[in-house]
Parts: sequence; C-alpha cells; structure tokens
Amino acid sequence: MSLNTLENVRIVLCQTSHPGNIGSAARAMKTMGLQHLYLVQPKFFPDPQATSLAAGATDILDKVIVTSSLPEALTGCGFAIGLSARKRTLSHEIVEPKEASRQALSIAQNQPVALVFGTEMSGLSGEELDYCQLQSIIPANPEYSSLNLAMAVQIMCYELRMHALEGKLDAAPEAALASNDDLERFYAHLEEMLVQIGYINPRAPKKLFERLRRLYSRTRLEKEEVNLLRGILTLSVNPKKHTKY
Amino acid sequence: MSLNTLENVRIVLCQTSHPGNIGSAARAMKTMGLQHLYLVQPKFFPDPQATSLAAGATDILDKVIVTSSLPEALTGCGFAIGLSARKRTLSHEIVEPKEASRQALSIAQNQPVALVFGTEMSGLSGEELDYCQLQSIIPANPEYSSLNLAMAVQIMCYELRMHALEGKLDAAPEAALASNDDLERFYAHLEEMLVQIGYINPRAPKKLFERLRRLYSRTRLEKEEVNLLRGILTLSVNPKKHTKY
Repeated sequence: MSLNTLENVRIVLCQTSHPGNIGSAARAMKTMGLQHLYLVQPKFFPDPQATSLAAGATDILDKVIVTSSLPEALTGCGFAIGLSARKRTLSHEIVEPKEASRQALSIAQNQPVALVFGTEMSGLSGEELDYCQLQSIIPANPEYSSLNLAMAVQIMCYELRMHALEGKLDAAPEAALASNDDLERFYAHLEEMLVQIGYINPRAPKKLFERLRRLYSRTRLEKEEVNLLRGILTLSVNPKKHTKY
Repeated sequence: MSLNTLENVRIVLCQTSHPGNIGSAARAMKTMGLQHLYLVQPKFFPDPQATSLAAGATDILDKVIVTSSLPEALTGCGFAIGLSARKRTLSHEIVEPKEASRQALSIAQNQPVALVFGTEMSGLSGEELDYCQLQSIIPANPEYSSLNLAMAVQIMCYELRMHALEGKLDAAPEAALASNDDLERFYAHLEEMLVQIGYINPRAPKKLFERLRRLYSRTRLEKEEVNLLRGILTLSVNPKKHTKY
C-alpha cells in the first residue's frame, strides 16, 4: 500500500482570513490521512475557532508551520500545484484534480510536494501561482463556483487518498527534481544575468521575465539541470579568462 | 454534455442536528450543479445559521423539501444510495464513491435517484440503510474517519459532477426500476402475507424479514417485476377459487 506517500504532501494555505477554515481544512486533511499544514501569513492563528472546527484534528494544528512568504512554505518541495479557479493569459498547464493528484503522488514518492490554496476572497494571486509548476482547477458549476476553501482542500485530499489507495502509482521520476529553493536561486541568478547583459531593464515591467519563469517552471527541472544552467549563467557574464575561442 | 442528469439526483439528509451543516451542504451541492435537497426531520430548519452558511446557495434552501420520514423523502426514486462508514453484518453491496456515482448517474438518466446521509453523530441507522439499494463508504483514514457531514456531501457531489462531465454515461437501464413507494408497498404486502402464512411472527424479532428486504433491495427490481411478485403474494393467500390443481 502506498499510503505512506501522503506523508510527503503538504497543504499550503495563503493568507487565510477565517480561522474556522484553517480548522476545517485540518480536519479534512486528517480524514484523508494528510498531516502537514503550512500557513502563509494567516490573518488569525492560532485561534479558538480554528481549534474548535478542527475537532479531532488539533494535532495537525499543533504541528502547523507558519511562514511569512509562499517560497518559505515551499522550502524543500520538488513540485507545487496551485489551486485556482481563474485561468490567466500567461497560463500554466492546467489539469483536473485527478490528474493533479496523480502527478503529485508520483513525485511525492521521492520528494515533498505542495498543494497551494489562495485566500477565501480572491484565490491565488498571479505571483503566487508563479511559484507553482502546475495549476489545478476543480471543475465547479460555472453559475456558482464559490467553493469553500476547506471544501476545496477536502476534495483534493480525497483525490490524493483515492489515488494512493489504488496502489498503482506511476514510476517515480528517475532523477531528483530541483527543490523550490534551488529554483528560486536559479531565477534570481537568471534575472541578475539578464539585467547585466541588458536583456531586461530592472525598472521596466517584468512580463518578459515572468514568461521565462513559467517556461522553466513547466519544465520540472532536475537538480542537476539547475546546476548546469547556473554554470552557464556564471560563465556568460564572467567568461573564463584562459579560453582560447 | 450530460450535466442535465444531475437534475435527477436528490440529496437527503436525515435528522441533521446542526443547521450550519444544512447550509454548507446546500452550498456544496450548488457548486457541483445539484439542487434538490430533502431534509428528514431536521432538528432546526429553517435557521439563520443554515442561511448564513449556504452563502450564494440560499435558492436551494428555499426549495428544500422537509419530510417526516425517509420513505417520504424517497418518493418516486428508482434508486437510493446510503452513505455510511459502518459495515453491518447483514451487509448491503458496498462500493466506493466513484462507483456509486457511476451507478447513480446511469439510473438518473431516466428516474430520480437519492443519496442518503445520516446524522452527524451516528450516521445512518440500520433501518434507514434498509431503504437504500446500495451502500457507499468514503474510504477515510481509519485512524480518524470523522468526516464532516457537509464535506461528505461535497465529495459525493464532486464525484457525480466529474462523472457527468466525462460524458460517457453507461447505457440507461432498459426497463424502469420500481420506485421506492412501489417497493415499500411490495414489502408491506410481503410481510403481511408472511405473517398470514405463519412464516414470520409479527411479535418476534424482525431479522428474517430484514434479510428478505435486503435480498430484494439488492436486486433492483423493475416496476413490472414488482407487479408480478405482488400478483403472486395476492394469490398465495387467496387462491383463485376456480383453480383446478
């Protein structure tokens, strides 16, 4: 049985307004066998309403990790899936919950994976989605798609559990994927180099750089590949002195 | 697209204690495109907490049908699925939510179908389950399976919607299934006959009759078949006078 893989999945809630939703999400997670909850700048936490709605899942609240930014909550993750009902122009690959769960569990066999949820009012921002490698949309009723945050968490955790119970996980990727922190260092490095060579203007709109980010984001870079790319970046602004070519 | 089939699915909540759960269930239903909510003896309804938690789904609360018994809520249904985490000795066929949704939608192409949920504290009683032809269990974490009622409704409605969106519904059953009311009349008739012939004692425990109910329940009797069976019942206690045998 591959239920252990659920150990490697974390749920990340960004800037939650209603602490009751945090409690309900914890309960939803525990009923499906998940336990790692990360909160990015929650408006209220800890809070008695969160504790009350968590019911028998207060152990999950006790272990919550609160962070001040999304990248911090993604530390060590090889893969992050953003849950958002909105399609954007510069779009990520978008999949249904079932397919998102399949991909998440495949990678979670080796590395931590995150499911990222936005605020109750407006969901994930474009910037937050940019930290994710994949977007998933729960195909709700277009006439009323206002799914409660904890309900969305419940559906995703349910799909993960169903998939884990099937016991037919896809083969794990052969090579380790770059972690979120590796990627962020690479993006910073890339941006610095692009500014240095005059390809982008640090004071101009960032559209161009965002496109590059998304391109690499989709690629699911391996750890080794990030090292290779960063080697190129280093050399491209500071070529080896003794080169003969 | 076969989303219209969802029109033929009703959600039945039995003896709900917390009106907030009724509101949350209505919201969960509407996000997935369902709209027919039946309440069997709710403790509080209407109630401001139900209205508040329904958010934009108060139209569903406005149309709620409140009944004094489960059979009444199942009136006209060709098929009822009981959601219950408990396995019983005299067990129904038990399937996972995905399979339950598949069967429900197949029949809902022609006839109303019900998903029946028990109380928050103890779920469906054995007697309530006996009104259902199939049992479905959401395979929750055995160490903490305390799924909130509205969350369970959300998961089932999600599975129904996913199945309807696939657009590959199984062929509808050729013959009309007997409705719940036909079945109840048949069971009453059968019991009466069994008492009359001395097969069961009206004052003794009902285990024997329950077994018969479950047997027929599993069979998914067609309308015509119920008529045939009732014909047999009538004749068996009151044979035709002119019979020659």
